[in-house]
Amino acid sequence: MAKLWQKDYRLLKEIGEFTSGEDSMLDNELVEADVLSNIAHVEMLNSISMLSAKEAAELKKGLKEILKLHKEGNFKIHCSEEDVHTAIENYLTKKYGDVGQKIHVGRSRNDQVISDLRIYSKAKLLLLGEPLLDLIETLLKFAEKSKDVPMVGYTHSRKAMPSSVGLWAGAFVESLVDDLRLLRTAYILNNRSPLGSAASYGVDLEINRELLRELLGFEKIQNNLLYVNNSRGKIESIILFALTQVMLDLAKLSEDIILFTREEFGYFTLPNEVLLGSSIMPQKKNPDVLEQIRARYVQVESGLFMVLNILKGLPSGYNGDLQLTKEPLIRGFKITELSLKVMDIIISKLKINESNLIKGFSKEVFAADEATRLAKGEFSSRVKSANKGGKNK
Amino acid sequence: MAKLWQKDYRLLKEIGEFTSGEDSMLDNELVEADVLSNIAHVEMLNSISMLSAKEAAELKKGLKEILKLHKEGNFKIHCSEEDVHTAIENYLTKKYGDVGQKIHVGRSRNDQVISDLRIYSKAKLLLLGEPLLDLIETLLKFAEKSKDVPMVGYTHSRKAMPSSVGLWAGAFVESLVDDLRLLRTAYILNNRSPLGSAASYGVDLEINRELLRELLGFEKIQNNLLYVNNSRGKIESIILFALTQVMLDLAKLSEDIILFTREEFGYFTLPNEVLLGSSIMPQKKNPDVLEQIRARYVQVESGLFMVLNILKGLPSGYNGDLQLTKEPLIRGFKITELSLKVMDIIISKLKINESNLIKGFSKEVFAADEATRLAKGEFSSRVKSANKGGKNK
Amino acid sequence: MAKLWQKDYRLLKEIGEFTSGEDSMLDNELVEADVLSNIAHVEMLNSISMLSAKEAAELKKGLKEILKLHKEGNFKIHCSEEDVHTAIENYLTKKYGDVGQKIHVGRSRNDQVISDLRIYSKAKLLLLGEPLLDLIETLLKFAEKSKDVPMVGYTHSRKAMPSSVGLWAGAFVESLVDDLRLLRTAYILNNRSPLGSAASYGVDLEINRELLRELLGFEKIQNNLLYVNNSRGKIESIILFALTQVMLDLAKLSEDIILFTREEFGYFTLPNEVLLGSSIMPQKKNPDVLEQIRARYVQVESGLFMVLNILKGLPSGYNGDLQLTKEPLIRGFKITELSLKVMDIIISKLKINESNLIKGFSKEVFAADEATRLAKGEFSSRVKSANKGGKNK
Amino acid sequence: MAKLWQKDYRLLKEIGEFTSGEDSMLDNELVEADVLSNIAHVEMLNSISMLSAKEAAELKKGLKEILKLHKEGNFKIHCSEEDVHTAIENYLTKKYGDVGQKIHVGRSRNDQVISDLRIYSKAKLLLLGEPLLDLIETLLKFAEKSKDVPMVGYTHSRKAMPSSVGLWAGAFVESLVDDLRLLRTAYILNNRSPLGSAASYGVDLEINRELLRELLGFEKIQNNLLYVNNSRGKIESIILFALTQVMLDLAKLSEDIILFTREEFGYFTLPNEVLLGSSIMPQKKNPDVLEQIRARYVQVESGLFMVLNILKGLPSGYNGDLQLTKEPLIRGFKITELSLKVMDIIISKLKINESNLIKGFSKEVFAADEATRLAKGEFSSRVKSANKGGKNK
Repeated sequence: MAKLWQKDYRLLKEIGEFTSGEDSMLDNELVEADVLSNIAHVEMLNSISMLSAKEAAELKKGLKEILKLHKEGNFKIHCSEEDVHTAIENYLTKKYGDVGQKIHVGRSRNDQVISDLRIYSKAKLLLLGEPLLDLIETLLKFAEKSKDVPMVGYTHSRKAMPSSVGLWAGAFVESLVDDLRLLRTAYILNNRSPLGSAASYGVDLEINRELLRELLGFEKIQNNLLYVNNSRGKIESIILFALTQVMLDLAKLSEDIILFTREEFGYFTLPNEVLLGSSIMPQKKNPDVLEQIRARYVQVESGLFMVLNILKGLPSGYNGDLQLTKEPLIRGFKITELSLKVMDIIISKLKINESNLIKGFSKEVFAADEATRLAKGEFSSRVKSANKGGKNK
Repeated sequence: MAKLWQKDYRLLKEIGEFTSGEDSMLDNELVEADVLSNIAHVEMLNSISMLSAKEAAELKKGLKEILKLHKEGNFKIHCSEEDVHTAIENYLTKKYGDVGQKIHVGRSRNDQVISDLRIYSKAKLLLLGEPLLDLIETLLKFAEKSKDVPMVGYTHSRKAMPSSVGLWAGAFVESLVDDLRLLRTAYILNNRSPLGSAASYGVDLEINRELLRELLGFEKIQNNLLYVNNSRGKIESIILFALTQVMLDLAKLSEDIILFTREEFGYFTLPNEVLLGSSIMPQKKNPDVLEQIRARYVQVESGLFMVLNILKGLPSGYNGDLQLTKEPLIRGFKITELSLKVMDIIISKLKINESNLIKGFSKEVFAADEATRLAKGEFSSRVKSANKGGKNK
Repeated sequence: MAKLWQKDYRLLKEIGEFTSGEDSMLDNELVEADVLSNIAHVEMLNSISMLSAKEAAELKKGLKEILKLHKEGNFKIHCSEEDVHTAIENYLTKKYGDVGQKIHVGRSRNDQVISDLRIYSKAKLLLLGEPLLDLIETLLKFAEKSKDVPMVGYTHSRKAMPSSVGLWAGAFVESLVDDLRLLRTAYILNNRSPLGSAASYGVDLEINRELLRELLGFEKIQNNLLYVNNSRGKIESIILFALTQVMLDLAKLSEDIILFTREEFGYFTLPNEVLLGSSIMPQKKNPDVLEQIRARYVQVESGLFMVLNILKGLPSGYNGDLQLTKEPLIRGFKITELSLKVMDIIISKLKINESNLIKGFSKEVFAADEATRLAKGEFSSRVKSANKGGKNK
Repeated sequence: MAKLWQKDYRLLKEIGEFTSGEDSMLDNELVEADVLSNIAHVEMLNSISMLSAKEAAELKKGLKEILKLHKEGNFKIHCSEEDVHTAIENYLTKKYGDVGQKIHVGRSRNDQVISDLRIYSKAKLLLLGEPLLDLIETLLKFAEKSKDVPMVGYTHSRKAMPSSVGLWAGAFVESLVDDLRLLRTAYILNNRSPLGSAASYGVDLEINRELLRELLGFEKIQNNLLYVNNSRGKIESIILFALTQVMLDLAKLSEDIILFTREEFGYFTLPNEVLLGSSIMPQKKNPDVLEQIRARYVQVESGLFMVLNILKGLPSGYNGDLQLTKEPLIRGFKITELSLKVMDIIISKLKINESNLIKGFSKEVFAADEATRLAKGEFSSRVKSANKGGKNK
């Protein structure tokens, strides 16, 4: 059988390289997802008699071999193969013959890419929960142990009122908990099966979309076939927005720690194990790691911006522009996961310098309380002595 | 009693103008929210004996007057007053004397602004549901009546496979329904009471935050006082992201309609009542309205990025930079609401030209189906005749 | 004579309001430019006998009246008129009769808008030179007087090596001088006459584009008629990029001053006249003005990205989307001009606290010099005593 | 001699990996620049007697070996080495002993990175001229041969007036010529020697900055040492803006060609050698290459946005965040260069279908000319027969 997409002309080398872009590298991240979606597709094709039981068994055997090879680091996508889909088909065809070509019957490449990204993102969103909850726990412990350690509260980068280290750390806990909700919303909207959409206009086969959904554990089918392609980029942007918010919190936390560990403050001390030296100044211990988290927030945010702008002006249906949404998504997951882990190390090793924190309390810090006391006296003699606990009600 | 924030020096006129920015104009949108939050605050101050029953009654009377004046268009925030908070205090003080000054006891201006934005956003998010559901309904009706009208399906801006007008319209329904979930998430995260946070470090009064929350109908208290200020901008960005997604859908819909109403397609016809003429070409009927929706997507998206970038590099606690997040938020709500209404008019008046749609079906459109049929024959004689219905399973 | 663009149907009110947007307000900024371009057009029409000498004289008289009214604040663009072009034509027609309608013969509205923006931008770019050079001069004076005032030099927000206040201030001088080159490039690319392009495809009249160029003092004609429209947005983005760079410098300067005026540093003191008080804390003197400059950088930058993203996906020729590029341009000029003036006030009043600056020199600051001295000894005994002057060679 | 930046503690592996990021890969692009800047530095150190003639000769010999190895693809930067600077020092030390360590005397790593980026960017900006001028030439030829081929001119995506293929193609020539000026401005601002700035605060050596400038052929010295670091990111953004403008033109050209090669237009035909097939539809020939250029505009623009936002909120002096500006710069150059070459191929092979272009002329296209003719008759009988040539004056 001839390849359906074989053409009778040769693509110019320059064009081929340009259009394949970084896919052969990026797709390495998608091997597992692609194998899973292919196994489900094979089952379904068998259920509608487009593959015999023997053919299906062979293909599944081959796919499992690929997964094993991949986990051992031995499944390579060659530049010339361009993407994971071709690499897998080539493997199967080489080893099992013509049946290998049947793996993509009834599927378009867009269908395959979207399915892979959904499966990949679903796993990554779940996995991100772990380092995020770890960091929340570490911050909670830090806040608990420092809840009575006094710290100047700032507004407008100026000393404002008395506060505590615990209040400061607790603010990030509450913020990260809000991010969990954003990640959950992204998870829900991503948890829809695109399988069976082909090129958005179906195929002339009795594709069983419900079976595909069930096999891959998606919550729902993405019903409208055209919306499957129209949602490409949209779902990526929803995920990237949630990641951006996590990074925003980490960046603010970094900003604060960079400030509070300056020589002029000395409120906290960073452990030597996370600091970099200088090539020219022997005394320097630089918080590059925190500066980079700050910049990596921008990197994830730029990925979001890139996806939203790629979508700008695109008509309905698949458009080749969408190929470039893969990279910011995969990069966004990697950066966020790594940044969470790195921040967990930093917070767990951050040293609190109580004496410096207390030195920060110059007398202006109490001016507002003093003023309130005066005001209360004037307003009403009915008010009993101020209850500090009231602050946090 | 002297004003707490009175200073013994005069602010330079240029600096005053620069820092107040567009607030006197924007705050007109926040009068209702500010009155509501003030009424709750007055109740609470009375409950903790910081205001007598008589004082509280006077202040609430005054606040209701302001609301009435505002609804009649007669409550003006003067440039010199800078913001709604000062304008309200001035009104109350002028009419009711010194008690007017007590309205802001225990509150910082940030606290007031955040409360206003939460109350305002809560109402706006709820109200946005109406035009959004209207448009969904209009699109559903359009899809229903056109579900059997054939239309070429495109990929890569090229004719791909047979499809229908109904499938096209339905894609936007499913996309807008997904947006509802994003709006709901934004609603939930915004539905937290910031009242009583003062400048993020509490005040030396027994503020009853639970009473404030209850009076204003917020679902929860935003617990950590510092997080109240740290979430400024964050919550706005979450709302703006949801609005951006709605606008993204409207922009894609606009892109498609601009294309399909071109003379070269003629698939649909826009009604004259939504088209603009040309100053130089008598025959022209221009879809400015759709082009603007496309551009307004970018406007809301730019507002989102403005907020995200304002937050970049800011330390914890209130910072004056945050004042500039108000404008993109208010503008975002206005644009989205108006765009939804305008799109509803357009879809309800969009004419389908079935004969042109059918003319679009050149023979290549059937090539994939033909290929599949051949493939099926080759793969397996067990396959029964193709079932078109299978496409949408 | 009937209006060329009059249509036999009525535009829906909602659509009209949506598509006119903020133009009636924004166009107030363009009255002067529009009068100038109209006068040139009238001259040219007269030169090619499309207007009689008497007609041309009447129209020029009317246009000068409009300019006078505008300068007195008495020329209003009504919402219903939508833009400055209609307002001017209405004024002329009302006062001088049918000849008023001839003012736009051979012009499209795009042609008018582009011409206005070019004339407006040319003037604004020139005018911006004054506050920019003023600030450079103020910074130079500041650097000169503080060139021997020691200051710790920082890298990674950590004390690094000995430096001076003069070096710090001088860095901004050199940066702003670089910005002048960007502004100049923007000026050159904007200094092209678009007049006579009509809707990009010319008109069937012997328009004398060279005369129009000469009358308005543009350096060159923008030759290709289609490029006139294709460059809409492009030129705005080039201008906005130069403005963004100016704001970037002001934002960095603000960041530094906010830091160095913190209680923990006390290197500089901001004058009371530029500081805002707090509504709740009597002691607070907040640098809102600097925080806002920091945020206004983002505002101008967002305007740049709005323009770049509006252009994304647009085909050649005028598209209605471009109407929305006006606002970020006009806003960008306003913010940058005002920010420069405000910064000039701040720098000219910034107090240097030499004793605090000296207190910043803890012994680590000299570690690098010490290390270099050791290294030099080791490397070579040929090296004479270190020459501090060598640093700035 | 012990390494100056050797510390007595071990950096955590996770932190080391996080902070080195993609540098070992990216720095492969900078080997040539780094060798050049090192040779200049060695010469200068020798001239001030910090290196003996023998030492200088050895180091230069080693550096030339590295260059040779690099050109043969045999100079590898190991992940553990992190960057090109360490890799080079390691090579020299291993082969030539302790003298290898002297190569970085008086330099900080920032100094090295900035120097490399300037040298690299200077070369890349020059080299970009070639494909840009090639494309301009190809477009000029295309415009020349098609100047009399009629084409409908569009506004608002609607047929507007008669135009020509030549006018359409010529618009891009004029736009790309404008980009040359932006690239030239970027070239000028980049053409400043940062060498000798060390960590922005000089070193205690008689560094001869003028000799360094001369040896490397920079036009000027970047005078203020602190500005050298403050301009990091700023110069990158200026370059990226120029690249963004080139990509903007290519994206608009792509947009137009995608449209005009649609089946509904058929104005142009793309050659098979640049089209991709479909995995499911045998007839499809997809313009992925043009869609990707459209998306790659966004990729370069996102890089610009990333750099501008990384700079947001950074204080003066080097900050670790800046390390992340390298990647968008290098990527921006690669994409722009490749896109220019690819577009050159496309334009040189683009087929013009004159008969389809003529079919596009429905009678409305002449309505404006007709209206003008009527208007001219009414206005003035003095006007002679219309001169089509007037259009382009």
